[in-house]
Amino acid sequence: MELTHIEHLGIAVKSLEEAIPYYEEMLGLKCYSIEEVKDQKVKTAFFKIGQTKLELLESTDPEGTIAKFIEKRGEGVHHVAFSTPSVQTCLNELEAKGVRLIDKAPRKGAEGLNIAFLHPKSTHGVLTEICEDPNKK
Amino acid sequence: MELTHIEHLGIAVKSLEEAIPYYEEMLGLKCYSIEEVKDQKVKTAFFKIGQTKLELLESTDPEGTIAKFIEKRGEGVHHVAFSTPSVQTCLNELEAKGVRLIDKAPRKGAEGLNIAFLHPKSTHGVLTEICEDPNKK
Repeated sequence: MELTHIEHLGIAVKSLEEAIPYYEEMLGLKCYSIEEVKDQKVKTAFFKIGQTKLELLESTDPEGTIAKFIEKRGEGVHHVAFSTPSVQTCLNELEAKGVRLIDKAPRKGAEGLNIAFLHPKSTHGVLTEICEDPNKK
Repeated sequence: MELTHIEHLGIAVKSLEEAIPYYEEMLGLKCYSIEEVKDQKVKTAFFKIGQTKLELLESTDPEGTIAKFIEKRGEGVHHVAFSTPSVQTCLNELEAKGVRLIDKAPRKGAEGLNIAFLHPKSTHGVLTEICEDPNKK
């Protein structure tokens, strides 16, 4: 199991329009991309700090995962994504060790990454994503 | 405002004894230190991944912040800590911009860092810590 760094933090926000100025003007970070990920029903805004991206997530659907998360817990950190050279290798290893998986095979996420989610029931409450960048191979 | 990287993620867990094996055996990370921070009523376990530490937090007091957090929201990411060359400079700048602060001056945190917390009401739900390493000066 090779995890190299935290690729990004997914942060649920009610409104990108309201949250982006906080990250830019207060924290001094720069939003370098806004992208809609239709199958996840979110609009995302990306910032970079050191090795890690901050991915703000605004729901595009009141029934979407992020809308439900905010309804239940308010805005805040939604998931933590670790970078790995091979998502499939990690999934095989984790499944063999009894970790509950949301995705049994990698799928496409924002920025063209191959991603998979583990289930927070198996990860002490942290919704955990693993991802690989196919452009870095 | 100069934030260089994510210094650590604070992750609330019910029991270090149960959570450490998950991080070590499932994610392949190595716990390199366990430390009690008495004034924060927590016992912490540290892991490193890339530039960032994972700081698992177990409450040592049923009335402590971490115990209350878990009671309300369950285990999960409790705070995000950004590294900066000067906490005091950041605090001055943030306060001037109207960000609500929990700490108006730096105090000592785990691993001898100078730290301060911003208030989640001002940070779109993410409890945010800024910290500097006085040993790196």
